[in-house]
Amino acid sequence: MLLEELRKTVCAQNIALVDNGLVLWTSGNVSARDPETNYVVIKPSGVLFDQLTPEKMVVVDLYGKVVDGDLKPSVDTASHLYVYRHRDDVHGIVHTHSPYATSFAITGEPLHIYTTTSAAVFGGTIPISDFAIIGEEEIGQEIVEKIGNSEAILIRSHGIFTIGKTSEKALKTSVILEETAQSVHYAMLRTKVEPLPEDVVEQGYRVYNDTYGQKKTTI
Amino acid sequence: MLLEELRKTVCAQNIALVDNGLVLWTSGNVSARDPETNYVVIKPSGVLFDQLTPEKMVVVDLYGKVVDGDLKPSVDTASHLYVYRHRDDVHGIVHTHSPYATSFAITGEPLHIYTTTSAAVFGGTIPISDFAIIGEEEIGQEIVEKIGNSEAILIRSHGIFTIGKTSEKALKTSVILEETAQSVHYAMLRTKVEPLPEDVVEQGYRVYNDTYGQKKTTI
Amino acid sequence: MLLEELRKTVCAQNIALVDNGLVLWTSGNVSARDPETNYVVIKPSGVLFDQLTPEKMVVVDLYGKVVDGDLKPSVDTASHLYVYRHRDDVHGIVHTHSPYATSFAITGEPLHIYTTTSAAVFGGTIPISDFAIIGEEEIGQEIVEKIGNSEAILIRSHGIFTIGKTSEKALKTSVILEETAQSVHYAMLRTKVEPLPEDVVEQGYRVYNDTYGQKKTTI
Amino acid sequence: MLLEELRKTVCAQNIALVDNGLVLWTSGNVSARDPETNYVVIKPSGVLFDQLTPEKMVVVDLYGKVVDGDLKPSVDTASHLYVYRHRDDVHGIVHTHSPYATSFAITGEPLHIYTTTSAAVFGGTIPISDFAIIGEEEIGQEIVEKIGNSEAILIRSHGIFTIGKTSEKALKTSVILEETAQSVHYAMLRTKVEPLPEDVVEQGYRVYNDTYGQKKTTI
Repeated sequence: MLLEELRKTVCAQNIALVDNGLVLWTSGNVSARDPETNYVVIKPSGVLFDQLTPEKMVVVDLYGKVVDGDLKPSVDTASHLYVYRHRDDVHGIVHTHSPYATSFAITGEPLHIYTTTSAAVFGGTIPISDFAIIGEEEIGQEIVEKIGNSEAILIRSHGIFTIGKTSEKALKTSVILEETAQSVHYAMLRTKVEPLPEDVVEQGYRVYNDTYGQKKTTI
Repeated sequence: MLLEELRKTVCAQNIALVDNGLVLWTSGNVSARDPETNYVVIKPSGVLFDQLTPEKMVVVDLYGKVVDGDLKPSVDTASHLYVYRHRDDVHGIVHTHSPYATSFAITGEPLHIYTTTSAAVFGGTIPISDFAIIGEEEIGQEIVEKIGNSEAILIRSHGIFTIGKTSEKALKTSVILEETAQSVHYAMLRTKVEPLPEDVVEQGYRVYNDTYGQKKTTI
Repeated sequence: MLLEELRKTVCAQNIALVDNGLVLWTSGNVSARDPETNYVVIKPSGVLFDQLTPEKMVVVDLYGKVVDGDLKPSVDTASHLYVYRHRDDVHGIVHTHSPYATSFAITGEPLHIYTTTSAAVFGGTIPISDFAIIGEEEIGQEIVEKIGNSEAILIRSHGIFTIGKTSEKALKTSVILEETAQSVHYAMLRTKVEPLPEDVVEQGYRVYNDTYGQKKTTI
Repeated sequence: MLLEELRKTVCAQNIALVDNGLVLWTSGNVSARDPETNYVVIKPSGVLFDQLTPEKMVVVDLYGKVVDGDLKPSVDTASHLYVYRHRDDVHGIVHTHSPYATSFAITGEPLHIYTTTSAAVFGGTIPISDFAIIGEEEIGQEIVEKIGNSEAILIRSHGIFTIGKTSEKALKTSVILEETAQSVHYAMLRTKVEPLPEDVVEQGYRVYNDTYGQKKTTI
């Protein structure tokens, strides 16, 4: 029952990646972990976003065994699962190659905080992983090792991952990450910019997480 | 009755922020002040733009008391209200993080006038505020102190606010501001550009406000 | 009868400006001249593109007298009419502030030919006008004086105009102009680029105009 | 029968060029070769993408004779056919002027591999052709001569071509090519970047082609 709901949610959130300009064709994926069963719902591999349906979502256990679904899960599944196994607090993961954020993953620059919005959402510099090969759990290992308290990480020469208490939270973080990277990129092209001071970032993060939205969140 | 109309208008204008490429996810907001009651209609906090309905708009008085509506108003409400209390001529306010204009807010450059369109709409350099924390009325104070005769202001390390005789006017100003920032950004990357002379800007502003549109406006 | 058709065409082409990413809000306009009556159909002033209907189009004679329509014609009407009066071969005119092309209008760089597509469509460097004030026919004078054999011109510190045997042709030219300006802008940011040699441009123009599309054109 | 299906497929894939932001107006085209008859289905010349229907697709033999269809085929047909005649493995070809990739075609830079995604899809540097005139088969000759093992090539001062075992594969390649060029362009503007080492690229290509999607592919 709950899994049926989660299939719908994850399907809609994968499609939202397109609507928010973060993905093209079949690249990128959203997954969510069901808090009760620990099963993970994830996008099938290589299926076009406009052909996704809740039924096509794949349900796997934490070790990659397909529990339900006719299709093969995303090629990034092992990395998602590695993160879920090592981070009990994470129930949603998003992966994209959104172009502005990915350009920082290409240059190897961590993305510092230049705006009140990114202070509020990220609370500190977005870290960058070392290079990791695709297809197995190496990316998951890099995420767990390097992400720290952040909810976003740049994957060296690849793209971005965001994690969250829910997949909706991780999706929001991935949208704001690209928006932030875009503005900061433009600013950097015109002049040398200085990140916001650390105490300003921390205060912005605290205020925002105490006041924003319709219910208090304590992330 | 009028408030019902204003809810519909403000809801549609919040959605128009998305259609004009100025906002993503839940960031950004439009408010309008009812000239009769002085009540302000504003976007609820943290609600996705595609889930907005007129009923979800929040009605507050000039001091932030919720007069009507089940949701919590935008986290920027105190700043909107500060502006309304100090500027009787303002009946609409728009706030976005539109990426090109925000890049000027990041670098701290005021946005000078390089085109006849921005001369016509802005009438002079778009000022930039000092840094202000989010969540209370500090941003509103910066706006009132620094915006002068302008209908747009860059908020340092944050985004933009536009004000207007109506919320439609403020919305238009926010669209033209981003369009202007975009072209000027491209031009600046290729070569050093000089703003238009002040007298040319003033003449362009005067001509436009005497002739454009279906009714004479005297803003 | 024909005028009714022309209203529909001009309305659809104004809306196509939005669909092709060339305009926002109310800026920009398409007009067409009826070959029989010499009447000109043009967008009304300050009306949002998504509210345009064939009935809202304004019909004027070559000297600006409104022949049919309840609304005031575009603020650029006098300039359109100046061009029609001085160029018998022109039956369609498009004006936009499309951002990449406008950035060349801001810097004052004529847009040279770097690709086979722009060779085919433009046949030579796209000229740039001197600065002209808005609201009267000064822009039209600049166009007639500076456009030469070109079907496109950059208007200094303003935007672009394209002219054509038909308004559809002028619309196409405005789309290709922005696409060209975009690619050339990116190339210029990375390295110094050299325009195509003049003979290559001329040959590309000739071949294309002899072979492209479903009917031979002899423009 | 099969040709009817292929008309529908090729029509939908031409329209997908628009949906993926690769083309505007009438520029760009997709073709596919029917494995049984060797007939090629291609976009008609100069028809707007939103007016394409399966019936408007043109069927030609490998030497350009129209086998079925009322319209004239794309001006690029001779180049498509040259490739099909010289590459038995190719059953789909896509041509666009997508702006970021085209900017590399303008500067004459081959596009090196900076990300795991482009390693996986391209397997090595995307080559660039010499300049070729449009309208005959010269572009096809350049493709066959310069593309080597790649499935994508930059056409000097023009745009891009991708080839594939199917037209869907070529379409995917054209989408990823533009996405890659976009991120790499941004990265290059901020700092000097180094391509991935060749062995990393090769390994990424191998892993991806062994594991991605719903069926093993052995391209």
